[in-house]
Amino acid sequence: MLTVFGSTALDTIRTPKKTLKNVLGGAATYAAISASNFVDTGLIAIAGRDFPKKYHDLIAEHLDLKGFTIKDGKTFRYDGKYDKTLSTRATLKTQLNVSRDFKPTVPEDYRKSQFVYLANNDPEQNAKLINEFDNVKFSMCDTIDFWISTKRQAVIKMIKSVDAVVINDEEARLLTKEFNLIKCAKEMMEWGAKYVIIKKGEHGSLMFYDDIIFPTAGFPLENVVDPTGAGDSFAGAMMGYLASKKSTNLSDIKRAVVHGNVMGSFAVEQYGLGGLLRIKKGSIGKRVSMYEKMIRF
Amino acid sequence: MLTVFGSTALDTIRTPKKTLKNVLGGAATYAAISASNFVDTGLIAIAGRDFPKKYHDLIAEHLDLKGFTIKDGKTFRYDGKYDKTLSTRATLKTQLNVSRDFKPTVPEDYRKSQFVYLANNDPEQNAKLINEFDNVKFSMCDTIDFWISTKRQAVIKMIKSVDAVVINDEEARLLTKEFNLIKCAKEMMEWGAKYVIIKKGEHGSLMFYDDIIFPTAGFPLENVVDPTGAGDSFAGAMMGYLASKKSTNLSDIKRAVVHGNVMGSFAVEQYGLGGLLRIKKGSIGKRVSMYEKMIRF
Repeated sequence: MLTVFGSTALDTIRTPKKTLKNVLGGAATYAAISASNFVDTGLIAIAGRDFPKKYHDLIAEHLDLKGFTIKDGKTFRYDGKYDKTLSTRATLKTQLNVSRDFKPTVPEDYRKSQFVYLANNDPEQNAKLINEFDNVKFSMCDTIDFWISTKRQAVIKMIKSVDAVVINDEEARLLTKEFNLIKCAKEMMEWGAKYVIIKKGEHGSLMFYDDIIFPTAGFPLENVVDPTGAGDSFAGAMMGYLASKKSTNLSDIKRAVVHGNVMGSFAVEQYGLGGLLRIKKGSIGKRVSMYEKMIRF
Repeated sequence: MLTVFGSTALDTIRTPKKTLKNVLGGAATYAAISASNFVDTGLIAIAGRDFPKKYHDLIAEHLDLKGFTIKDGKTFRYDGKYDKTLSTRATLKTQLNVSRDFKPTVPEDYRKSQFVYLANNDPEQNAKLINEFDNVKFSMCDTIDFWISTKRQAVIKMIKSVDAVVINDEEARLLTKEFNLIKCAKEMMEWGAKYVIIKKGEHGSLMFYDDIIFPTAGFPLENVVDPTGAGDSFAGAMMGYLASKKSTNLSDIKRAVVHGNVMGSFAVEQYGLGGLLRIKKGSIGKRVSMYEKMIRF
Protein backbone atom coordinates (compact mmCIF):
# COMPACT_ATOMS: atom_id res chain seq x y z
CA MET A 1 0.00 0.00 0.00
CA LEU A 2 0.90 3.66 -0.23
CA THR A 3 0.66 6.22 2.55
CA VAL A 4 0.18 9.88 1.73
CA PHE A 5 0.66 12.56 4.36
CA GLY A 6 -0.43 16.11 3.73
CA SER A 7 -3.20 18.65 3.69
CA THR A 8 -6.86 18.37 2.97
CA ALA A 9 -8.42 21.75 2.42
CA LEU A 10 -11.45 23.70 1.41
CA ASP A 11 -10.31 25.74 -1.57
CA THR A 12 -11.63 28.81 -3.25
CA ILE A 13 -10.25 28.77 -6.79
CA ARG A 14 -10.68 31.79 -8.99
CA THR A 15 -10.01 31.19 -12.67
CA PRO A 16 -10.77 33.68 -15.45
CA LYS A 17 -13.86 31.67 -16.45
CA LYS A 18 -15.18 30.35 -13.16
CA THR A 19 -14.86 30.66 -9.40
CA LEU A 20 -15.25 27.62 -7.18
CA LYS A 21 -15.96 28.25 -3.51
CA ASN A 22 -15.06 25.95 -0.63
CA VAL A 23 -14.41 22.95 -2.81
CA LEU A 24 -12.44 19.94 -1.67
CA GLY A 25 -8.73 20.48 -2.20
CA GLY A 26 -5.35 20.13 -0.52
CA ALA A 27 -2.08 18.65 -1.76
CA ALA A 28 -2.66 15.29 -0.10
CA THR A 29 -6.22 15.02 -1.38
CA TYR A 30 -5.05 15.43 -4.98
CA ALA A 31 -2.01 13.17 -4.51
CA ALA A 32 -3.90 10.42 -2.72
CA ILE A 33 -6.87 10.37 -5.07
CA SER A 34 -4.49 10.33 -8.03
CA ALA A 35 -2.54 7.46 -6.45
CA SER A 36 -5.72 5.53 -5.66
CA ASN A 37 -6.08 4.86 -9.39
CA PHE A 38 -3.15 2.51 -9.05
CA VAL A 39 -3.00 1.16 -5.50
CA ASP A 40 -4.67 1.14 -2.07
CA THR A 41 -3.85 4.47 -0.55
CA GLY A 42 -4.04 5.63 3.05
CA LEU A 43 -4.32 9.29 3.93
CA ILE A 44 -2.80 10.99 6.96
CA ALA A 45 -4.49 14.37 7.21
CA ILE A 46 -6.73 16.53 9.37
CA ALA A 47 -9.97 18.42 8.86
CA GLY A 48 -12.29 20.44 11.06
CA ARG A 49 -15.89 19.86 12.08
CA ASP A 50 -17.00 22.00 9.13
CA PHE A 51 -15.63 19.43 6.67
CA PRO A 52 -18.73 18.59 4.57
CA LYS A 53 -20.10 15.08 4.79
CA LYS A 54 -20.18 14.82 0.98
CA TYR A 55 -16.44 15.38 0.86
CA HIS A 56 -15.87 12.92 3.68
CA ASP A 57 -17.92 10.36 1.77
CA LEU A 58 -16.01 11.11 -1.40
CA ILE A 59 -12.55 10.56 0.06
CA ALA A 60 -13.81 7.51 1.97
CA GLU A 61 -14.85 6.03 -1.34
CA HIS A 62 -11.30 6.27 -2.73
CA LEU A 63 -8.99 6.17 0.28
CA ASP A 64 -8.30 4.42 3.53
CA LEU A 65 -9.00 6.96 6.26
CA LYS A 66 -7.47 5.39 9.36
CA GLY A 67 -5.02 8.27 9.36
CA PHE A 68 -7.66 10.95 8.75
CA THR A 69 -8.56 12.99 11.85
CA ILE A 70 -11.53 15.28 12.39
CA LYS A 71 -10.93 17.83 15.13
CA ASP A 72 -12.87 20.69 16.70
CA GLY A 73 -12.28 23.79 14.64
CA LYS A 74 -12.29 24.75 11.01
CA THR A 75 -10.68 22.98 8.05
CA PHE A 76 -7.60 24.49 6.40
CA ARG A 77 -8.76 27.00 3.80
CA TYR A 78 -7.00 28.33 0.76
CA ASP A 79 -8.12 31.07 -1.61
CA GLY A 80 -6.18 31.69 -4.82
CA LYS A 81 -6.66 33.50 -8.09
CA TYR A 82 -5.17 32.59 -11.46
CA ASP A 83 -4.18 35.17 -14.06
CA LYS A 84 -5.72 34.96 -17.51
CA THR A 85 -3.02 32.62 -18.84
CA LEU A 86 -3.60 30.21 -15.89
CA SER A 87 0.16 30.17 -15.45
CA THR A 88 0.49 32.19 -12.27
CA ARG A 89 -1.63 32.07 -9.14
CA ALA A 90 -1.83 34.73 -6.47
CA THR A 91 -2.69 33.60 -2.95
CA LEU A 92 -5.51 35.74 -1.59
CA LYS A 93 -5.95 34.02 1.76
CA THR A 94 -4.55 31.07 3.71
CA GLN A 95 -6.19 29.97 6.96
CA LEU A 96 -4.33 27.10 8.60
CA ASN A 97 -7.08 26.48 11.19
CA VAL A 98 -6.95 22.91 12.57
CA SER A 99 -3.86 22.06 10.56
CA ARG A 100 -1.81 24.60 12.52
CA ASP A 101 -1.38 22.35 15.58
CA PHE A 102 -1.78 18.99 13.86
CA LYS A 103 0.50 16.39 15.42
CA PRO A 104 0.34 13.62 12.85
CA THR A 105 1.15 10.05 13.80
CA VAL A 106 1.28 6.99 11.61
CA PRO A 107 -1.56 4.55 12.32
CA GLU A 108 -0.41 1.06 13.30
CA ASP A 109 -1.70 -0.36 10.01
CA TYR A 110 0.29 2.08 7.92
CA ARG A 111 3.67 1.47 9.61
CA LYS A 112 4.44 -1.41 7.29
CA SER A 113 3.72 0.79 4.26
CA GLN A 114 6.64 0.42 1.84
CA PHE A 115 5.79 3.49 -0.21
CA VAL A 116 5.35 6.85 1.49
CA TYR A 117 4.61 10.24 -0.01
CA LEU A 118 5.12 13.34 2.11
CA ALA A 119 3.38 16.29 0.49
CA ASN A 120 4.46 19.92 0.85
CA ASN A 121 4.17 19.88 4.66
CA ASP A 122 6.36 21.42 7.32
CA PRO A 123 9.73 19.79 6.52
CA GLU A 124 10.37 19.01 10.19
CA GLN A 125 7.06 17.19 10.41
CA ASN A 126 7.86 15.25 7.22
CA ALA A 127 11.32 14.27 8.46
CA LYS A 128 9.88 13.15 11.80
CA LEU A 129 6.99 11.20 10.32
CA ILE A 130 9.09 9.17 7.90
CA ASN A 131 10.87 7.65 10.92
CA GLU A 132 7.62 6.15 12.17
CA PHE A 133 7.48 3.76 9.23
CA ASP A 134 9.13 0.37 9.73
CA ASN A 135 9.99 -0.80 6.28
CA VAL A 136 10.12 1.99 3.71
CA LYS A 137 11.20 0.93 0.23
CA PHE A 138 10.64 4.28 -1.47
CA SER A 139 9.79 7.67 0.02
CA MET A 140 9.29 10.94 -1.77
CA CYS A 141 8.69 14.50 -0.57
CA ASP A 142 7.59 17.78 -2.08
CA THR A 143 8.10 21.28 -0.76
CA ILE A 144 6.94 24.84 -1.45
CA ASP A 145 8.40 28.31 -1.42
CA PHE A 146 6.96 29.07 2.04
CA TRP A 147 9.13 26.38 3.69
CA ILE A 148 12.14 27.19 1.52
CA SER A 149 11.93 30.81 2.65
CA THR A 150 11.26 30.10 6.32
CA LYS A 151 12.98 26.75 7.04
CA ARG A 152 15.55 26.13 4.31
CA GLN A 153 17.87 24.07 6.51
CA ALA A 154 14.96 21.86 7.58
CA VAL A 155 14.03 21.34 3.92
CA ILE A 156 17.59 20.22 3.17
CA LYS A 157 17.50 17.88 6.18
CA MET A 158 14.16 16.46 5.01
CA ILE A 159 15.65 15.79 1.57
CA LYS A 160 18.40 13.78 3.25
CA SER A 161 15.75 11.61 4.93
CA VAL A 162 13.88 10.49 1.78
CA ASP A 163 14.70 8.71 -1.47
CA ALA A 164 13.22 11.21 -3.89
CA VAL A 165 12.30 14.85 -4.13
CA VAL A 166 9.57 16.07 -6.44
CA ILE A 167 9.62 19.83 -6.81
CA ASN A 168 8.62 22.42 -9.36
CA ASP A 169 11.23 24.32 -11.36
CA GLU A 170 10.87 27.68 -9.64
CA GLU A 171 11.03 26.10 -6.20
CA ALA A 172 14.06 24.04 -7.18
CA ARG A 173 15.80 27.28 -8.17
CA LEU A 174 14.75 29.06 -4.98
CA LEU A 175 15.90 26.15 -2.83
CA THR A 176 19.27 25.46 -4.43
CA LYS A 177 20.10 29.03 -5.45
CA GLU A 178 21.04 27.68 -8.87
CA PHE A 179 19.26 28.66 -12.12
CA ASN A 180 20.15 25.76 -14.40
CA LEU A 181 17.87 22.82 -13.58
CA ILE A 182 20.63 20.21 -13.97
CA LYS A 183 22.69 22.16 -11.43
CA CYS A 184 19.61 22.36 -9.16
CA ALA A 185 19.18 18.59 -9.31
CA LYS A 186 22.88 17.92 -8.71
CA GLU A 187 22.73 20.08 -5.60
CA MET A 188 19.73 18.16 -4.23
CA MET A 189 21.44 14.86 -5.01
CA GLU A 190 24.50 16.19 -3.19
CA TRP A 191 22.23 16.71 -0.16
CA GLY A 192 21.21 13.09 -0.26
CA ALA A 193 18.27 12.70 -2.66
CA LYS A 194 18.73 9.63 -4.81
CA TYR A 195 16.10 10.76 -7.32
CA VAL A 196 15.11 14.30 -8.18
CA ILE A 197 12.02 15.03 -10.24
CA ILE A 198 11.63 18.62 -11.40
CA LYS A 199 8.13 19.47 -12.60
CA LYS A 200 7.85 22.09 -15.34
CA GLY A 201 4.06 22.35 -15.64
CA GLU A 202 2.94 22.29 -19.28
CA HIS A 203 6.57 21.68 -20.32
CA GLY A 204 6.76 18.27 -18.67
CA SER A 205 9.44 17.22 -16.24
CA LEU A 206 13.04 16.19 -15.75
CA MET A 207 13.96 13.15 -13.68
CA PHE A 208 17.50 12.77 -12.41
CA TYR A 209 19.17 9.66 -11.03
CA ASP A 210 22.91 9.31 -10.74
CA ASP A 211 24.19 10.63 -14.09
CA ILE A 212 20.96 9.77 -15.89
CA ILE A 213 18.49 12.41 -17.03
CA PHE A 214 15.01 11.43 -18.16
CA PRO A 215 13.21 14.36 -19.81
CA THR A 216 9.51 14.19 -20.60
CA ALA A 217 7.54 16.60 -22.73
CA GLY A 218 4.24 17.76 -21.29
CA PHE A 219 1.20 15.92 -22.60
CA PRO A 220 -0.20 18.45 -25.11
CA LEU A 221 -3.64 19.69 -24.11
CA GLU A 222 -5.91 22.05 -25.94
CA ASN A 223 -8.25 22.80 -23.07
CA VAL A 224 -6.79 23.61 -19.69
CA VAL A 225 -9.27 25.05 -17.21
CA ASP A 226 -7.74 24.74 -13.75
CA PRO A 227 -4.12 23.86 -12.93
CA THR A 228 -4.88 23.40 -9.20
CA GLY A 229 -3.43 20.16 -7.89
CA ALA A 230 -1.67 19.18 -11.11
CA GLY A 231 1.72 18.82 -9.42
CA ASP A 232 0.17 16.89 -6.52
CA SER A 233 -1.63 14.59 -8.96
CA PHE A 234 1.70 14.07 -10.74
CA ALA A 235 3.46 13.07 -7.51
CA GLY A 236 0.57 10.89 -6.34
CA ALA A 237 0.47 9.04 -9.65
CA MET A 238 4.21 8.43 -9.55
CA MET A 239 3.97 6.94 -6.06
CA GLY A 240 0.78 5.02 -6.78
CA TYR A 241 2.28 3.51 -9.91
CA LEU A 242 5.49 2.46 -8.13
CA ALA A 243 3.57 1.05 -5.15
CA SER A 244 1.35 -0.95 -7.50
CA LYS A 245 4.46 -2.41 -9.14
CA LYS A 246 6.20 -2.80 -5.74
CA SER A 247 9.23 -1.66 -7.68
CA THR A 248 11.97 0.92 -7.60
CA ASN A 249 13.66 -0.19 -10.82
CA LEU A 250 14.81 2.73 -12.93
CA SER A 251 12.58 1.68 -15.83
CA ASP A 252 9.55 1.63 -13.51
CA ILE A 253 10.51 5.01 -12.09
CA LYS A 254 10.61 6.37 -15.65
CA ARG A 255 7.17 4.88 -16.32
CA ALA A 256 6.01 6.35 -13.01
CA VAL A 257 7.10 9.81 -14.19
CA VAL A 258 5.14 9.37 -17.42
CA HIS A 259 2.09 8.33 -15.38
CA GLY A 260 2.68 11.47 -13.31
CA ASN A 261 2.57 13.61 -16.45
CA VAL A 262 -0.56 11.88 -17.64
CA MET A 263 -2.43 12.22 -14.33
CA GLY A 264 -1.39 15.88 -14.18
CA SER A 265 -2.90 16.29 -17.64
CA PHE A 266 -6.23 14.81 -16.51
CA ALA A 267 -6.21 17.04 -13.43
CA VAL A 268 -6.03 20.33 -15.34
CA GLU A 269 -8.76 19.52 -17.85
CA GLN A 270 -11.57 20.02 -15.35
CA TYR A 271 -12.17 22.21 -12.31
CA GLY A 272 -10.94 21.13 -8.89
CA LEU A 273 -10.84 17.37 -8.40
CA GLY A 274 -13.23 16.86 -11.32
CA GLY A 275 -10.48 15.83 -13.73
CA LEU A 276 -9.21 13.10 -11.40
CA LEU A 277 -12.64 11.85 -10.39
CA ARG A 278 -14.01 11.45 -13.90
CA ILE A 279 -11.28 9.27 -15.39
CA LYS A 280 -12.84 6.41 -17.28
CA LYS A 281 -11.52 2.89 -17.00
CA GLY A 282 -8.64 2.34 -19.38
CA SER A 283 -8.10 5.98 -20.18
CA ILE A 284 -4.90 6.32 -18.12
CA GLY A 285 -3.21 3.48 -20.00
CA LYS A 286 -4.56 4.87 -23.23
CA ARG A 287 -3.04 8.29 -22.61
CA VAL A 288 0.30 6.73 -21.59
CA SER A 289 0.32 4.81 -24.89
CA MET A 290 -0.62 7.96 -26.78
CA TYR A 291 2.32 9.76 -25.20
CA GLU A 292 4.65 6.89 -26.00
CA LYS A 293 3.54 6.92 -29.62
CA MET A 294 3.53 10.70 -29.88
CA ILE A 295 7.18 11.23 -28.88
CA ARG A 296 8.50 8.38 -31.03
CA PHE A 297 10.48 9.30 -34.13
CA MET B 1 20.61 21.79 -52.28
CA LEU B 2 19.08 24.18 -49.77
CA THR B 3 18.67 27.91 -50.19
CA VAL B 4 18.52 30.16 -47.15
CA PHE B 5 17.37 33.76 -47.42
CA GLY B 6 17.86 36.17 -44.56
CA SER B 7 20.11 38.50 -42.67
CA THR B 8 23.82 38.50 -42.07
CA ALA B 9 24.76 40.90 -39.35
CA LEU B 10 27.45 42.22 -37.11
CA ASP B 11 26.18 41.57 -33.60
CA THR B 12 27.04 42.97 -30.24
CA ILE B 13 25.94 40.39 -27.69
CA ARG B 14 25.96 41.24 -24.02
CA THR B 15 25.66 38.26 -21.68
CA PRO B 16 26.15 38.42 -17.90
CA LYS B 17 29.60 36.86 -18.24
CA LYS B 18 30.91 38.26 -21.51
CA THR B 19 30.29 40.90 -24.16
CA LEU B 20 31.08 40.18 -27.80
CA LYS B 21 31.41 43.17 -30.11
CA ASN B 22 30.75 43.20 -33.85
CA VAL B 23 30.80 39.45 -34.21
CA LEU B 24 29.32 37.62 -37.16
CA GLY B 25 25.61 37.02 -36.66
CA GLY B 26 22.24 37.25 -38.39
CA ALA B 27 19.39 34.75 -38.65
CA ALA B 28 20.45 33.45 -42.05
CA THR B 29 24.08 33.07 -41.01
CA TYR B 30 23.10 30.80 -38.11
CA ALA B 31 20.49 28.91 -40.13
CA ALA B 32 22.73 28.38 -43.17
CA ILE B 33 25.82 27.35 -41.21
CA SER B 34 23.68 24.97 -39.17
CA ALA B 35 22.18 23.53 -42.38
CA SER B 36 25.59 23.20 -44.01
CA ASN B 37 26.34 20.34 -41.60
CA PHE B 38 23.85 18.31 -43.61
CA VAL B 39 23.70 19.60 -47.17
CA ASP B 40 25.13 22.11 -49.66
CA THR B 41 23.61 25.41 -48.70
CA GLY B 42 23.34 28.64 -50.65
CA LEU B 43 22.90 31.97 -48.88
CA ILE B 44 20.89 34.92 -50.17
CA ALA B 45 21.92 37.88 -48.04
CA ILE B 46 23.58 41.28 -48.10
CA ALA B 47 26.45 42.93 -46.26
CA GLY B 48 28.24 46.27 -46.46
CA ARG B 49 31.80 47.15 -47.36
CA ASP B 50 32.68 46.99 -43.65
CA PHE B 51 31.99 43.25 -43.58
CA PRO B 52 35.32 41.84 -42.33
CA LYS B 53 37.29 39.64 -44.67
CA LYS B 54 37.67 36.98 -41.98
CA TYR B 55 33.89 36.64 -41.80
CA HIS B 56 33.59 36.56 -45.55
CA ASP B 57 36.21 33.80 -45.63
CA LEU B 58 34.40 31.96 -42.88
CA ILE B 59 31.00 31.87 -44.58
CA ALA B 60 32.66 31.10 -47.94
CA GLU B 61 34.18 28.03 -46.32
CA HIS B 62 30.74 26.66 -45.36
CA LEU B 63 28.30 28.15 -47.85
CA ASP B 64 27.71 28.85 -51.50
CA LEU B 65 27.76 32.63 -51.85
CA LYS B 66 26.33 33.21 -55.33
CA GLY B 67 23.40 34.89 -53.59
CA PHE B 68 25.54 36.94 -51.23
CA THR B 69 25.85 40.63 -52.15
CA ILE B 70 28.32 43.21 -50.89
CA LYS B 71 27.10 46.75 -51.31
CA ASP B 72 28.39 50.22 -50.50
CA GLY B 73 27.39 51.07 -46.98
CA LYS B 74 27.45 49.40 -43.59
CA THR B 75 26.39 45.89 -42.64
CA PHE B 76 23.21 45.37 -40.62
CA ARG B 77 24.07 45.73 -36.93
CA TYR B 78 22.31 44.41 -33.89
CA ASP B 79 23.07 45.09 -30.24
CA GLY B 80 21.27 43.11 -27.52
CA LYS B 81 21.66 42.37 -23.85
CA TYR B 82 20.58 39.23 -22.00
CA ASP B 83 19.31 39.23 -18.42
CA LYS B 84 21.13 37.10 -15.87
CA THR B 85 18.97 34.05 -16.57
CA LEU B 86 19.77 34.31 -20.32
CA SER B 87 16.06 33.89 -20.95
CA THR B 88 15.15 37.40 -22.04
CA ARG B 89 17.03 39.74 -24.33
CA ALA B 90 16.59 43.48 -24.58
CA THR B 91 17.38 45.09 -27.93
CA LEU B 92 19.67 48.06 -27.36
CA LYS B 93 20.19 49.04 -31.00
CA THR B 94 19.20 47.92 -34.49
CA GLN B 95 20.80 49.52 -37.56
CA LEU B 96 19.38 48.14 -40.80
CA ASN B 97 22.01 49.87 -42.95
CA VAL B 98 22.45 48.14 -46.36
CA SER B 99 19.68 45.63 -45.60
CA ARG B 100 17.09 48.42 -45.58
CA ASP B 101 16.88 48.65 -49.36
CA PHE B 102 17.99 45.14 -50.23
CA LYS B 103 16.10 43.81 -53.26
CA PRO B 104 16.93 40.14 -53.13
CA THR B 105 16.73 37.97 -56.20
CA VAL B 106 17.29 34.27 -56.59
CA PRO B 107 20.47 33.47 -58.52
CA GLU B 108 19.93 31.33 -61.60
CA ASP B 109 21.67 28.37 -59.96
CA TYR B 110 19.39 28.45 -56.92
CA ARG B 111 16.08 28.45 -58.83
CA LYS B 112 16.02 24.69 -58.99
CA SER B 113 16.53 24.47 -55.22
CA GLN B 114 13.88 22.10 -53.84
CA PHE B 115 14.30 23.18 -50.24
CA VAL B 116 14.00 26.84 -49.29
CA TYR B 117 14.22 28.48 -45.90
CA LEU B 118 13.01 32.05 -45.51
CA ALA B 119 14.29 33.49 -42.25
CA ASN B 120 12.56 36.20 -40.22
CA ASN B 121 12.60 38.71 -43.09
CA ASP B 122 9.99 41.19 -44.25
CA PRO B 123 7.03 38.88 -44.93
CA GLU B 124 6.30 40.57 -48.27
CA GLN B 125 9.86 39.96 -49.39
CA ASN B 126 9.64 36.33 -48.31
CA ALA B 127 6.32 35.77 -50.12
CA LYS B 128 7.73 37.39 -53.26
CA LEU B 129 11.01 35.51 -53.22
CA ILE B 130 9.48 32.06 -52.87
CA ASN B 131 7.80 32.58 -56.26
CA GLU B 132 11.17 32.88 -57.96
CA PHE B 133 11.95 29.22 -57.30
CA ASP B 134 10.90 26.76 -60.00
CA ASN B 135 10.52 23.50 -58.21
CA VAL B 136 10.05 23.85 -54.47
CA LYS B 137 9.43 20.61 -52.62
CA PHE B 138 9.48 22.07 -49.10
CA SER B 139 9.60 25.69 -47.95
CA MET B 140 9.63 27.02 -44.43
CA CYS B 141 9.48 30.52 -42.98
CA ASP B 142 10.08 32.14 -39.62
CA THR B 143 8.84 35.49 -38.35
CA ILE B 144 9.40 37.88 -35.44
CA ASP B 145 7.33 40.19 -33.28
CA PHE B 146 8.38 43.25 -35.31
CA TRP B 147 6.63 41.96 -38.46
CA ILE B 148 3.67 40.61 -36.49
CA SER B 149 3.15 44.04 -34.97
CA THR B 150 3.68 46.04 -38.15
CA LYS B 151 2.57 43.75 -41.01
CA ARG B 152 0.33 41.04 -39.51
CA GLN B 153 -1.72 40.53 -42.68
CA ALA B 154 1.45 40.13 -44.73
CA VAL B 155 2.70 37.54 -42.26
CA ILE B 156 -0.54 35.58 -42.66
CA LYS B 157 -0.23 35.82 -46.43
CA MET B 158 3.37 34.63 -46.27
CA ILE B 159 2.27 31.62 -44.21
CA LYS B 160 -0.16 30.74 -46.97
CA SER B 161 2.69 30.71 -49.50
CA VAL B 162 4.95 28.17 -47.72
CA ASP B 163 4.69 24.59 -46.48
CA ALA B 164 5.85 25.13 -42.93
CA VAL B 165 6.12 27.81 -40.30
CA VAL B 166 8.74 27.69 -37.58
CA ILE B 167 8.03 30.20 -34.85
CA ASN B 168 8.71 30.62 -31.17
CA ASP B 169 5.94 30.24 -28.58
CA GLU B 170 5.59 33.91 -27.66
CA GLU B 171 5.48 34.97 -31.31
CA ALA B 172 2.94 32.26 -32.12
CA ARG B 173 0.72 33.69 -29.38
CA LEU B 174 1.22 37.26 -30.55
CA LEU B 175 0.46 36.33 -34.14
CA THR B 176 -2.62 34.17 -33.61
CA LYS B 177 -4.01 35.97 -30.56
CA GLU B 178 -4.45 32.57 -28.91
CA PHE B 179 -2.66 31.50 -25.73
CA ASN B 180 -2.86 27.72 -25.96
CA LEU B 181 -0.15 26.49 -28.35
CA ILE B 182 -2.36 23.83 -29.94
CA LYS B 183 -4.89 26.56 -30.71
CA CYS B 184 -2.07 28.73 -32.09
CA ALA B 185 -0.96 25.94 -34.41
CA LYS B 186 -4.52 25.19 -35.55
CA GLU B 187 -4.96 28.83 -36.47
CA MET B 188 -1.77 28.84 -38.55
CA MET B 189 -2.78 25.60 -40.25
CA GLU B 190 -6.16 27.21 -40.96
CA TRP B 191 -4.23 29.98 -42.75
CA GLY B 192 -2.56 27.41 -44.97
CA ALA B 193 0.54 26.11 -43.22
CA LYS B 194 0.79 22.36 -43.62
CA TYR B 195 3.34 22.04 -40.83
CA VAL B 196 3.73 24.26 -37.80
CA ILE B 197 6.77 24.00 -35.55
CA ILE B 198 6.59 25.96 -32.32
CA LYS B 199 9.95 26.43 -30.62
CA LYS B 200 9.94 26.62 -26.82
CA GLY B 201 13.64 27.30 -26.15
CA GLU B 202 14.99 25.07 -23.39
CA HIS B 203 11.62 23.30 -23.25
CA GLY B 204 11.96 21.84 -26.74
CA SER B 205 9.33 22.16 -29.41
CA LEU B 206 5.94 21.08 -30.71
CA MET B 207 5.46 20.02 -34.32
CA PHE B 208 1.96 19.95 -35.78
CA TYR B 209 0.79 18.27 -38.95
CA ASP B 210 -2.86 17.50 -39.65
CA ASP B 211 -4.11 16.06 -36.33
CA ILE B 212 -0.66 14.84 -35.33
CA ILE B 213 1.36 16.48 -32.59
CA PHE B 214 5.03 15.65 -32.14
CA PRO B 215 6.38 17.05 -28.87
CA THR B 216 10.09 17.07 -28.14
CA ALA B 217 11.74 17.82 -24.81
CA GLY B 218 14.69 20.20 -24.91
CA PHE B 219 18.08 18.54 -24.93
CA PRO B 220 19.16 19.01 -21.29
CA LEU B 221 22.24 21.18 -21.00
CA GLU B 222 24.18 22.15 -17.91
CA ASN B 223 26.14 24.99 -19.44
CA VAL B 224 24.34 27.54 -21.56
CA VAL B 225 26.34 30.65 -22.32
CA ASP B 226 24.66 32.42 -25.25
CA PRO B 227 21.20 31.67 -26.69
CA THR B 228 21.78 33.89 -29.74
CA GLY B 229 20.86 32.11 -32.94
CA ALA B 230 19.53 28.96 -31.26
CA GLY B 231 16.16 29.19 -33.00
CA ASP B 232 17.81 29.94 -36.35
CA SER B 233 20.16 26.99 -35.90
CA PHE B 234 17.11 24.85 -35.12
CA ALA B 235 15.35 25.89 -38.32
CA GLY B 236 18.49 25.57 -40.44
CA ALA B 237 19.16 22.07 -39.14
CA MET B 238 15.58 21.02 -39.87
CA MET B 239 15.86 22.23 -43.45
CA GLY B 240 19.38 20.92 -43.95
CA TYR B 241 18.40 17.50 -42.67
CA LEU B 242 15.32 17.31 -44.92
CA ALA B 243 17.25 18.56 -47.96
CA SER B 244 19.95 15.96 -47.34
CA LYS B 245 17.28 13.24 -47.26
CA LYS B 246 15.43 14.87 -50.19
CA SER B 247 12.36 13.90 -48.20
CA THR B 248 9.19 15.34 -46.77
CA ASN B 249 7.95 12.13 -45.15
CA LEU B 250 6.44 12.70 -41.75
CA SER B 251 9.02 10.44 -40.10
CA ASP B 252 11.85 12.46 -41.69
CA ILE B 253 10.18 15.68 -40.60
CA LYS B 254 10.10 14.36 -37.03
CA ARG B 255 13.77 13.44 -37.26
CA ALA B 256 14.43 16.89 -38.73
CA VAL B 257 12.82 18.48 -35.67
CA VAL B 258 15.03 16.40 -33.38
CA HIS B 259 18.07 17.51 -35.39
CA GLY B 260 16.79 21.06 -34.93
CA ASN B 261 16.73 20.62 -31.16
CA VAL B 262 20.19 19.12 -31.19
CA MET B 263 21.74 21.87 -33.33
CA GLY B 264 20.05 24.47 -31.11
CA SER B 265 21.69 22.79 -28.15
CA PHE B 266 25.14 23.03 -29.75
CA ALA B 267 24.51 26.68 -30.62
CA VAL B 268 23.89 27.82 -27.03
CA GLU B 269 26.89 26.08 -25.49
CA GLN B 270 29.37 28.58 -26.86
CA TYR B 271 29.37 32.29 -27.68
CA GLY B 272 28.14 33.51 -31.03
CA LEU B 273 28.67 31.04 -33.87
CA GLY B 274 31.31 29.20 -31.84
CA GLY B 275 28.97 26.37 -30.88
CA LEU B 276 28.06 25.66 -34.51
CA LEU B 277 31.57 26.01 -35.86
CA ARG B 278 33.24 23.66 -33.38
CA ILE B 279 31.05 20.60 -33.86
CA LYS B 280 33.22 17.53 -34.20
CA LYS B 281 32.56 14.91 -36.80
CA GLY B 282 29.98 12.44 -35.56
CA SER B 283 28.83 14.49 -32.61
CA ILE B 284 25.49 15.50 -34.16
CA GLY B 285 24.47 11.90 -34.70
CA LYS B 286 25.76 11.04 -31.27
CA ARG B 287 23.61 13.69 -29.60
CA VAL B 288 20.55 12.61 -31.63
CA SER B 289 21.11 9.03 -30.38
CA MET B 290 21.58 10.28 -26.83
CA TYR B 291 18.26 12.11 -27.05
CA GLU B 292 16.55 9.06 -28.48
CA LYS B 293 17.89 6.91 -25.65
CA MET B 294 17.21 9.54 -22.98
CA ILE B 295 13.49 9.91 -23.64
CA ARG B 296 12.85 6.17 -23.97
CA PHE B 297 10.95 4.47 -21.15
